[in-house]
Amino acid sequence: MVTINCDMGEAFGIYNLCDDASVMPFVTHINVACGFHASDPIVMWNTVKLARTFEIGIGAHPGLPDKEGFGRREMKMTRDEIASAVMYQVGALSSFLQAEGLAMTHIKPHGALMGMAQKQESTANAIADAAQCFELPVIAVANSVLADVLNHRKIPFVCEFYVDLEYDDNGVQVISRHPKTISPQDAAAKAVRALDVGVTRSKNGNDVDVVADSICVHGDTVGAAKVAEAVYTALSSRLKRNLI
Amino acid sequence: MVTINCDMGEAFGIYNLCDDASVMPFVTHINVACGFHASDPIVMWNTVKLARTFEIGIGAHPGLPDKEGFGRREMKMTRDEIASAVMYQVGALSSFLQAEGLAMTHIKPHGALMGMAQKQESTANAIADAAQCFELPVIAVANSVLADVLNHRKIPFVCEFYVDLEYDDNGVQVISRHPKTISPQDAAAKAVRALDVGVTRSKNGNDVDVVADSICVHGDTVGAAKVAEAVYTALSSRLKRNLI
Amino acid sequence: MVTINCDMGEAFGIYNLCDDASVMPFVTHINVACGFHASDPIVMWNTVKLARTFEIGIGAHPGLPDKEGFGRREMKMTRDEIASAVMYQVGALSSFLQAEGLAMTHIKPHGALMGMAQKQESTANAIADAAQCFELPVIAVANSVLADVLNHRKIPFVCEFYVDLEYDDNGVQVISRHPKTISPQDAAAKAVRALDVGVTRSKNGNDVDVVADSICVHGDTVGAAKVAEAVYTALSSRLKRNLI
Amino acid sequence: MVTINCDMGEAFGIYNLCDDASVMPFVTHINVACGFHASDPIVMWNTVKLARTFEIGIGAHPGLPDKEGFGRREMKMTRDEIASAVMYQVGALSSFLQAEGLAMTHIKPHGALMGMAQKQESTANAIADAAQCFELPVIAVANSVLADVLNHRKIPFVCEFYVDLEYDDNGVQVISRHPKTISPQDAAAKAVRALDVGVTRSKNGNDVDVVADSICVHGDTVGAAKVAEAVYTALSSRLKRNLI
Repeated sequence: MVTINCDMGEAFGIYNLCDDASVMPFVTHINVACGFHASDPIVMWNTVKLARTFEIGIGAHPGLPDKEGFGRREMKMTRDEIASAVMYQVGALSSFLQAEGLAMTHIKPHGALMGMAQKQESTANAIADAAQCFELPVIAVANSVLADVLNHRKIPFVCEFYVDLEYDDNGVQVISRHPKTISPQDAAAKAVRALDVGVTRSKNGNDVDVVADSICVHGDTVGAAKVAEAVYTALSSRLKRNLI
Repeated sequence: MVTINCDMGEAFGIYNLCDDASVMPFVTHINVACGFHASDPIVMWNTVKLARTFEIGIGAHPGLPDKEGFGRREMKMTRDEIASAVMYQVGALSSFLQAEGLAMTHIKPHGALMGMAQKQESTANAIADAAQCFELPVIAVANSVLADVLNHRKIPFVCEFYVDLEYDDNGVQVISRHPKTISPQDAAAKAVRALDVGVTRSKNGNDVDVVADSICVHGDTVGAAKVAEAVYTALSSRLKRNLI
Repeated sequence: MVTINCDMGEAFGIYNLCDDASVMPFVTHINVACGFHASDPIVMWNTVKLARTFEIGIGAHPGLPDKEGFGRREMKMTRDEIASAVMYQVGALSSFLQAEGLAMTHIKPHGALMGMAQKQESTANAIADAAQCFELPVIAVANSVLADVLNHRKIPFVCEFYVDLEYDDNGVQVISRHPKTISPQDAAAKAVRALDVGVTRSKNGNDVDVVADSICVHGDTVGAAKVAEAVYTALSSRLKRNLI
Repeated sequence: MVTINCDMGEAFGIYNLCDDASVMPFVTHINVACGFHASDPIVMWNTVKLARTFEIGIGAHPGLPDKEGFGRREMKMTRDEIASAVMYQVGALSSFLQAEGLAMTHIKPHGALMGMAQKQESTANAIADAAQCFELPVIAVANSVLADVLNHRKIPFVCEFYVDLEYDDNGVQVISRHPKTISPQDAAAKAVRALDVGVTRSKNGNDVDVVADSICVHGDTVGAAKVAEAVYTALSSRLKRNLI
């Protein structure tokens, strides 16, 4: 059994980013930006309302306080600063869920915050602090300090597999400003293989081990809705509504 | 019976504003800034932790998204924009209360947001929307559109009396960048008179009707702690812990 | 003789807004957002570099400090606050012009700042203060307090005509979140008529007087490049490079 | 001959930081914050006006876009991002100098931006790019990548000595959130020794080489004005008005 998640609610004021409504039918969970790296209160509430109509899980997608850099520029912050910033964002989003009579399902760090948590113990612990306080599971990445910390602190988490990113020979996703386009069929096949066999083909052509508790699709790739639909269809008999 | 409230947690990053710790012993409730007009996640959490040691009530003090203007410059915003912004801030603060095992006691709008709510029905309704969602009482001002709206929508609220501000002949507090200093004795006498007789002396020397469900002291006036202490002492036999 | 101007450089971080490059061939002047209501340093510099290749005039397009509201929400600010904010933004943009060996051609207030300047003397004077300091002409709107103030203070200015907005019976443009689409031919005819006859047809079907020293086209309307091209072609024999 | 510089204009909105007016009589140059790590347009203009009355040199003190962290948290930014951000800030400040009929004297990076420039070539080059464009000298730190880059690119610069910070055995200043207080006499003696002998006593008690083209005093240390006055008096016969 598996879930499909996608980052959403990343518009800001007059600025649109992705067509969330076109992808929502094909995911089980969304990660909603919380106003630090993207989004604003109006966007957040509207995203929650829209997700409610699809009856999908809604998690918080906290980021670094840097809209200009879309939360993709690492910042040197203390564990306390990060824990507070994550708590603040999760709490802010929770108000819109409460308004719609919904409960939050998880936390997934965004961009450089996730990147920092993958290698820094203080950042990983800061995220774990917030998850523990809210008693929410985390979407993390396999073979990361974050996964280690969560495991050690017995905080529930799942590892996600990026169907629209390339992987290197260490099984680490390759972040790029201009990721390669993937066809819906290839994406679906990649998701199925990761789920069934636990491997993916690296950009160098080697099979590397991956963990695919949840499949992540990105809304800003070309043909995102088609990719999501193909993955959703290929996995339809094995989708679950609970993250854990 | 009466309460005493004070705005707190209005520091920001490296910047201090008031000596919250010196005033906390002399109030029953604090209104914590939520990161829009002032404060940041670290300041908010520390303020909640400090208030917890004094066992005082903690409410949200949401403001307009304008740190440069300290939330004192009116902004033309729709009801939806304001409701979302207030929800966001209340939710953000609630996370730190949850972390400390506390429950929020109330909402009190800050600065220009309070000013707008005193005269604009859309702003008053936006605040009422958030209060209703969180099932929290509001600290408002008597003879205001906000009080009318809350009354009409049957949302619990109390009216506050400003012991350190002057009043005009209509019983409306006079907002000034440089308010007159008031002595602790005068402040205490003013509070007692407002509470017992329901009047205060206007700046023109006339007695005007006021409502003093809660006494507001400001932390940024000269000798704030002494003023708070005098008011607290004068009212000590009549203080209550519940706002309503 | 006439000019054609368009607001540009209103992207922000990861967020795009208009396809500036497609409209630049068909204008004589652009108004570059300066980082308050939109834009960021990278976007500003790139916009200046692009405009340089088209050899068009580059002016500053300062706005209110409110990216979330795209500078379209009025804020209660003093003359000093607005003058300082405009000075700051014009100076910031000027650095990129200096880097490219160019001189700034004008100042045009954005959104709610222009709206406030049309009716408030203090705001109009604040903009005039900045224009005077930089010795730059202003793009204003006819029949406005801003035009009166500039005229009285002998600060050079031109009045613009909005080819893609409707007008009311007082000759005032109608601001709308969802403006009606206009065909390229209609836009061109409307521009020619405003220029030659000094009138336009109001939304109620009446001819009203307008001043069209400069034609403003908006980059975020549907088919903006086609509209700009049609207007540019229709006016080609009468275009000038100097605003005044 | 030597200069004395101090960071100023670091207030923000309602928030004060240092008593600039008390230190200005005892410096030859100030570095004015430009609205990214601190300050706002009103503060900047007022700081320039005040400095003008003392006839001291005014430079730009650009920082990282992070007011919450006061520009003291490193951010992973590209050379282009940093160069643009510095250009933007220098240009913004220059508008207030122009308004007062003054010319800018120098650029000095703030906090983490200076720290990054001391060790990263891309950041050092970004600052050099801006300095070159504005044809302004830089205040740097000896034995840094920034000094190397400026030297190599033949961009004029001076190295500053921190009279109120401790040094380690490598001659590198020790940045601390709570720096030790230094007495005015000790500060003056330290400045004279650095200037005359080119050494200072490290926190471990060893003499280390330092370069003291300009003496930096900080306005937020305890007794800052007294420290500045003592240094100013001790060096009075050797002060110059030109940085280079």
